[in-house]
Amino acid sequence: MTEETKAVKSEQTRALIVETALRLFRERGYEATTMRAIAKEAGVSVGNAYYYFGSKEELIQAYYDELQDEHLKACEAVLATERDFAPRLLGVLKARVDTMVPYHAFAGKFFKFAAEPTSPLNPFSAESGPARDSAVAIYRQVVDGSTLKIDPEFRAELPELLWLYSMGIVLYWVHDGSPGCRKTYLLVERTVPLVNRMVSMSRLPGFKSVTRELVSIIRDVRD
Amino acid sequence: MTEETKAVKSEQTRALIVETALRLFRERGYEATTMRAIAKEAGVSVGNAYYYFGSKEELIQAYYDELQDEHLKACEAVLATERDFAPRLLGVLKARVDTMVPYHAFAGKFFKFAAEPTSPLNPFSAESGPARDSAVAIYRQVVDGSTLKIDPEFRAELPELLWLYSMGIVLYWVHDGSPGCRKTYLLVERTVPLVNRMVSMSRLPGFKSVTRELVSIIRDVRD
Repeated sequence: MTEETKAVKSEQTRALIVETALRLFRERGYEATTMRAIAKEAGVSVGNAYYYFGSKEELIQAYYDELQDEHLKACEAVLATERDFAPRLLGVLKARVDTMVPYHAFAGKFFKFAAEPTSPLNPFSAESGPARDSAVAIYRQVVDGSTLKIDPEFRAELPELLWLYSMGIVLYWVHDGSPGCRKTYLLVERTVPLVNRMVSMSRLPGFKSVTRELVSIIRDVRD
Repeated sequence: MTEETKAVKSEQTRALIVETALRLFRERGYEATTMRAIAKEAGVSVGNAYYYFGSKEELIQAYYDELQDEHLKACEAVLATERDFAPRLLGVLKARVDTMVPYHAFAGKFFKFAAEPTSPLNPFSAESGPARDSAVAIYRQVVDGSTLKIDPEFRAELPELLWLYSMGIVLYWVHDGSPGCRKTYLLVERTVPLVNRMVSMSRLPGFKSVTRELVSIIRDVRD
């Protein structure tokens, strides 16, 4: 085997393990699924499975990374062509929901593990730092690639605020029982224009100090 | 025993079971603690424990109710004496943190059960409806007992929005690792003036339509 063939094969095995793990997590639950069972179902040795992933947590991080890649791909077109802030944000958030929808049943069951404050799977944990940074980076693209004119201080914090807003939408989505997560799409479509207006209003005299105070609070309470 | 003595004794047994359950949940974890173990530790028969509580979930609901009562008591003074919106809200939120702080370690471990969307312990679940209503009622008192002058439509929705804001603070608190939850207090103290200003600004011409749209969205996406 050439080095290149090896790399391709390795990537395929890795993907197969992640895919198998997600299926088993969905079917049997996260806690009940062992690395041994994942390896068996994927048709690889337990040692081989551990070679790729040190733990079930790492498998979930790989799933997060995959979701993130899918999201980035699904956003590319709108980020490349649209210059207005509101449609950029709308496109990115809709794409986010699109990529999540197939995992809705899994997310409902899995959510409690990610919600635990001490879990490395928590989106606010140190371990999730890189995933969070690359998620925030998409919202930085939304802002920086747009024609939006706002206070530079506020502009610097806005990507993180938009990420928090997207987490609020994810939280709503996890609880959304409507067919095809219709209500989550509605929430996105209805709140984006509102967020856009509030962001634009941040330059108005009375509002400017509110924005500045908000930025200062975020900096103070963030760990 | 007179009927009255019986009622007092019954209330004492009930309280003892809740107290014991919370201690065991904290020491051994929620999942690992059985009703049998709770009964044994409390010195009552298993049948007696089940007479008071049909399940562990009901024990947690009893704990929520207790927290709620404590919160209400801790707010009484400020709600009775203060007429301005901001200090009323500040007093209520600080009291909320005060009553939660002793349970911080427990909350960290327990949070994942409450976070599960299908769990009756989730604050957004149908089962939590009564607890949620009485929590929202405190924020209605905050608004209605104040001198605040705002749009009637917005006024009707504001208590629920303030409750959501308080849930955001609880979410931050669960993740707060600072000594004595100092940062959560800081978050409350810094955000209340901001919320106050935004609520007051809701009457300004440009902002009024934002408020109306917000009210309309809430009505549309709520369950």
